[in-house]
Amino acid sequence: MVAVPENTTIGLLAGVMETRIIKRRIKQIRRQLSKNKINCLIVVKPANVTYTTGFSGDDSWAIITAGKTYLLTDSRFTEQAQGECPNCIIIERKKSLAEAAAELIKQLKSIRTAGVEKSASLTAYESLKKNIRGRLKPVANIIESVRSIKDGSEIASVRTAVKIAIKALAQVRKHIKTGITENELAGRLDFQIRRLGAQNSFETIVAFGANASRPHHRPGGRKLGKNDPILIDFGVKFNNYCCDLTRCFVTGKPSAFYKKVYNAVRQAQNAAIKMIKSGVEIRKVDAAAREVIKKHNLPVYGHGTGHGLGLEVHEGPAVSPKSKGRLKAGEIITIEPAVYVPGKIGVRIEDDVLVTKTGCKIIGR
Amino acid sequence: MVAVPENTTIGLLAGVMETRIIKRRIKQIRRQLSKNKINCLIVVKPANVTYTTGFSGDDSWAIITAGKTYLLTDSRFTEQAQGECPNCIIIERKKSLAEAAAELIKQLKSIRTAGVEKSASLTAYESLKKNIRGRLKPVANIIESVRSIKDGSEIASVRTAVKIAIKALAQVRKHIKTGITENELAGRLDFQIRRLGAQNSFETIVAFGANASRPHHRPGGRKLGKNDPILIDFGVKFNNYCCDLTRCFVTGKPSAFYKKVYNAVRQAQNAAIKMIKSGVEIRKVDAAAREVIKKHNLPVYGHGTGHGLGLEVHEGPAVSPKSKGRLKAGEIITIEPAVYVPGKIGVRIEDDVLVTKTGCKIIGR
Repeated sequence: MVAVPENTTIGLLAGVMETRIIKRRIKQIRRQLSKNKINCLIVVKPANVTYTTGFSGDDSWAIITAGKTYLLTDSRFTEQAQGECPNCIIIERKKSLAEAAAELIKQLKSIRTAGVEKSASLTAYESLKKNIRGRLKPVANIIESVRSIKDGSEIASVRTAVKIAIKALAQVRKHIKTGITENELAGRLDFQIRRLGAQNSFETIVAFGANASRPHHRPGGRKLGKNDPILIDFGVKFNNYCCDLTRCFVTGKPSAFYKKVYNAVRQAQNAAIKMIKSGVEIRKVDAAAREVIKKHNLPVYGHGTGHGLGLEVHEGPAVSPKSKGRLKAGEIITIEPAVYVPGKIGVRIEDDVLVTKTGCKIIGR
Repeated sequence: MVAVPENTTIGLLAGVMETRIIKRRIKQIRRQLSKNKINCLIVVKPANVTYTTGFSGDDSWAIITAGKTYLLTDSRFTEQAQGECPNCIIIERKKSLAEAAAELIKQLKSIRTAGVEKSASLTAYESLKKNIRGRLKPVANIIESVRSIKDGSEIASVRTAVKIAIKALAQVRKHIKTGITENELAGRLDFQIRRLGAQNSFETIVAFGANASRPHHRPGGRKLGKNDPILIDFGVKFNNYCCDLTRCFVTGKPSAFYKKVYNAVRQAQNAAIKMIKSGVEIRKVDAAAREVIKKHNLPVYGHGTGHGLGLEVHEGPAVSPKSKGRLKAGEIITIEPAVYVPGKIGVRIEDDVLVTKTGCKIIGR
């Protein structure tokens, strides 16, 4: 894989097509810029770059001004960017992203104050600050506040991702038998996802037996025993959009304790999902799931009950006891309560849920 | 996949074992701390956290003081950290990483000045600054300067990664025939890597025909034609260490132009590899490869000739016309010259090379 280039010539390569969706997003974002008293935004977070430009490569920034959107990329991605970003002026940089951004902003005299996303590294910020000085202002959550509400095309992409995930898992079911290793099962699942024309949205977690008590277990050489519980936490990325599902089951005979735990987690998930509706306090959704686990006298999971997803597999809003906001129609969140007894058992059930005005829809059901 | 938790109880869980390698690294790093006039380092870059603690999970920081190493993690990873980090005091945080780090540093009265890696986001830095104030100092390249020189165990891991990569590619060769899609070939290769007990070190690039002119092409539905050139750029991660290889070939009959380009790229790679030796100026290695491409009157690639690799698939030193330093024995770098003619042809040949006192070793050959 080739590293960031440093010896290319800067060139201005204008996109020729237009896309309606990106234009609408940029319009919304420009309104946020005014509210934040900036007239330019340096977009550094990869998902935000994709959201505002359509670009799906790496190592690139977007710069949104009152009139234009620029994509700063490098020669590895120029051809790709020309295809993906008809709304952007594509700049093939020869310096670091921060230097190229500062150079462009210095040329654009109409920029009074340029915002830079706080997800920028300190290295990048210092470089920008050195060159842009008083015109630079760190800002947060501008694009995130827009992109947490999904439009129809985004919902359709997540829905396709879920469908592919469910189909891929169904296709590997026949391989799930005594003796298969976690690693091989994860590999087979990933391969099916590929064959269905998609990618993983994160490294697949397959955990057999007590390994499932580690929420982020990395699949290894552990072989499936006759009555071993199985936990599979996996996601598909389709058209840049992610899904995130967890399934737990036993191929042999589950123990009475496993059944008790599984039922408690399923009830907890149902309780949380029942709460979901535009306007509901997010922490109440979290609490609904936790309450059920407590009532069953089982240990309550240490993580949040869920998280937003879209271009990123983890994005806002978080669904946790500390969540302060309320749900909004168009948000997609995971609901994934669990029970973990270290060294003994782990059960987590996770689905992706679209918040609507009147309630919610479990995506893919 | 579960998001960062926010509702767990802080607990101090001391590791019980010791590992010789980590201890030696920490000793070297502590010497660098003194040179930088800090007596504590907040380690935020994931590869640096792994290097100093052995931890292979996500969303965790290390804090190195004069006497101890702390791992700040969360309940998703506590069990894993207890197994992986015998040298660390493991702190299960309930707040953000920056808040948990500030809390710990405030408790440790002996810390006069805490360095924070500049790869930290501005969000994290501002949070640390708010809580630690005058005792905080941004620093760069402390751990990177130590870890660019690989020890025997690291070299062995990269070597195993290369061997697995070569074996995996050999195992899928029989599937490379007319009609297979880029996506299916990438999926089969990834599956073999998994079966051999390893992971991908980055998203596999498979490009057929003219798609190879895009250095970071994402595999799609393009089917292999009879005499199509193939480019495969892929890497294996084994024991947390990465390799990175690119192979180009034609299953049918290559065109005369393809043969010319392939030979030029092969000669360019050989010319660069011949230059490699401890003490040599890095930019001269880069120039050696470029010169060969120029002599063949072919377009010179826009990216660097190579990059360091180890825990990260891209790390220092960069091998580019702008590289300022000299090679050091123990560094592992890729050498990957290329020729791209957009829409027509792309050939890149990449191997991983260990720098030695007397020359170099191509890993896996």
